[in-house]
Amino acid sequence: MSEVYGVRRSRLRDRCAATGSDGALVSRPANVRYLAGGAPPGAVLLMGRAEDILLCPRALTGDPADGRPDDRLRLTVLPTSAGDPAVAAAELARTEGVESLAVEEHHLTVVRHRALRSVAPRLRIADLGLAVEHLRIVKDEEEIACLRIAAEITDQALGELLESILVGRTERHLALELERRLVDHGADGPAFATSVATGPNSGRGGHRPTDRRVEEGDFLSVCVGANYRGYRCEIGRTFVIGTSPADWQIELYDIVFAAQRAARESLLPGAAYREVDHAARQILNAAGHGEGLAQLTGHGVGLEIEEDPRLGPAAMGKLDACVPVTVEPGVHVPGRGGVRIDDTLVVRQEADGGPELLTITTKELLAL
Amino acid sequence: MSEVYGVRRSRLRDRCAATGSDGALVSRPANVRYLAGGAPPGAVLLMGRAEDILLCPRALTGDPADGRPDDRLRLTVLPTSAGDPAVAAAELARTEGVESLAVEEHHLTVVRHRALRSVAPRLRIADLGLAVEHLRIVKDEEEIACLRIAAEITDQALGELLESILVGRTERHLALELERRLVDHGADGPAFATSVATGPNSGRGGHRPTDRRVEEGDFLSVCVGANYRGYRCEIGRTFVIGTSPADWQIELYDIVFAAQRAARESLLPGAAYREVDHAARQILNAAGHGEGLAQLTGHGVGLEIEEDPRLGPAAMGKLDACVPVTVEPGVHVPGRGGVRIDDTLVVRQEADGGPELLTITTKELLAL
Repeated sequence: MSEVYGVRRSRLRDRCAATGSDGALVSRPANVRYLAGGAPPGAVLLMGRAEDILLCPRALTGDPADGRPDDRLRLTVLPTSAGDPAVAAAELARTEGVESLAVEEHHLTVVRHRALRSVAPRLRIADLGLAVEHLRIVKDEEEIACLRIAAEITDQALGELLESILVGRTERHLALELERRLVDHGADGPAFATSVATGPNSGRGGHRPTDRRVEEGDFLSVCVGANYRGYRCEIGRTFVIGTSPADWQIELYDIVFAAQRAARESLLPGAAYREVDHAARQILNAAGHGEGLAQLTGHGVGLEIEEDPRLGPAAMGKLDACVPVTVEPGVHVPGRGGVRIDDTLVVRQEADGGPELLTITTKELLAL
Repeated sequence: MSEVYGVRRSRLRDRCAATGSDGALVSRPANVRYLAGGAPPGAVLLMGRAEDILLCPRALTGDPADGRPDDRLRLTVLPTSAGDPAVAAAELARTEGVESLAVEEHHLTVVRHRALRSVAPRLRIADLGLAVEHLRIVKDEEEIACLRIAAEITDQALGELLESILVGRTERHLALELERRLVDHGADGPAFATSVATGPNSGRGGHRPTDRRVEEGDFLSVCVGANYRGYRCEIGRTFVIGTSPADWQIELYDIVFAAQRAARESLLPGAAYREVDHAARQILNAAGHGEGLAQLTGHGVGLEIEEDPRLGPAAMGKLDACVPVTVEPGVHVPGRGGVRIDDTLVVRQEADGGPELLTITTKELLAL
């Protein structure tokens, strides 16, 4: 397994060499984790001339949430008096003879960046840009296996919730119960703050649970995902509570379902990001629900719940095989509620069967 | 209530004027919330020449977790195409005639800072530094009332857990159950990730719950706190499971208890931050537990769970009245476990009765 991390780091090293940097300082937590295998919070990775060094603000404790750092890395636990690990790394780079250090300017604050420059004034500081984020887009099979397990856990937790009595319970309690079930089934935790939305709140993207109770006739929309070994997936479903659905509910559900299916079916290697978005958006537009749509129809998932690619109207780029993404269109009708349907899928060649659906909970409109 | 926010902003405005800035851009979320009363995630506050403007990346939804913005602010909801609110704010500042804009360089990334400069090249960009963080140290009675409620909720949740059967349950489940109980009692959520540590894990600061199950004879240490209207408190207690405590457990508990009491008793207006730390640390040192102690004996709490002041050996400054802090010494003996005792208190004048204890769960060594 260590080899994977070594390969990732040597790809980054090539990228740096091509832009004239002989060292890199990686500070964004998900990027550190991707290249180091595991790291305690606040650790930074210095890719120096001779070796790669993980600078940790505290000792490793075997905490599963930290993962296990690649054993080819040199580990340095900084004394508490050492201050900021990024600054310590810049000093170390200087003493190791690095001349040009590429740093993550989209993650470092102005104050930290200035501190780096002041401890190593003769070091040339360049911008690493989104180099690591770009490496992270296409996943290997080990990463996809983690996402698959995360999705299985999520499907189980959601399935169990649907078997329980829902009427009268609050959004907040349902969200907490889902998160408990994720952990019961082996998740390291929720992948993001679980969203449960009822009645007029339903269908709102990113809705934070309130004390509103589930009522008969409500739409109930749920968005939940597990974090398994750092990998995060997402599922969203909308249900009707109690009685059989009203006509407007069936109609709205069918529209969102058709939009989500169209986007799912467009997930093929070579498809432009914005084509996937367009596939869903044009159906919602045609049905008169173009107003107030979310900026994105979906996004990449992995070590972060929202990462590249972004599937939106202005996104530039094309899908590759082995890129896991969400497809999550939704419509919210103010005052009435709405529908969101959200899956995590992996882009696959048509010869390999096309997009691989990780979140398999039914998308029929269930009346619970 | 709006007046409070107006007063806070005018104090900041005076601070800016004194350093030659005629505008300020506040981006750190807790600082925005402090000055604006409430804001959706990602909002920034521009204090311009004529008026104060809250720039929001999305419409307000009445979400209680966002709070309610002060109605004297001008609210601007940015279209999704507008990009980064901080950049939009810099443009607005320029058009309003601001000449020198103070920004939070400890929060803005290098990339965002550069984007600000490029949209408004003639605007002088200065550093606001930790001006807002410093204003936040001394709390008003309304803020302390929120912390008091947060502490009551936390005491209730912890008290209920202690009445349940603990042996055989995992650290992770106990942590999730505590968080559910916090919400049951009216918290907006946990103030931070709940820590439950058993047996050899007990007493470790910031321990993240594992699948280890509670066993007879274990030390069990818990650190938990509620978030109530944005205000966060913290309590830590250590218990013995099942049988009566072993001699080494009683001895260790007594040492940590004495250290924690000494630090609590030193919390008076005018006491140096490091005196409070020293009060606890010297007792732990004298008992032979000086190795591996945490960097801080305690810290401020408020809109963030760890804020100024920092009560450590190198901290500069003196306590004021109405500053809420934690006092949380702990000792962890590798392989055996340990003890942490953690309270949230408010510094008060001796004439007012001295430090006000918010977290009132007993600190006797309970055998559960």
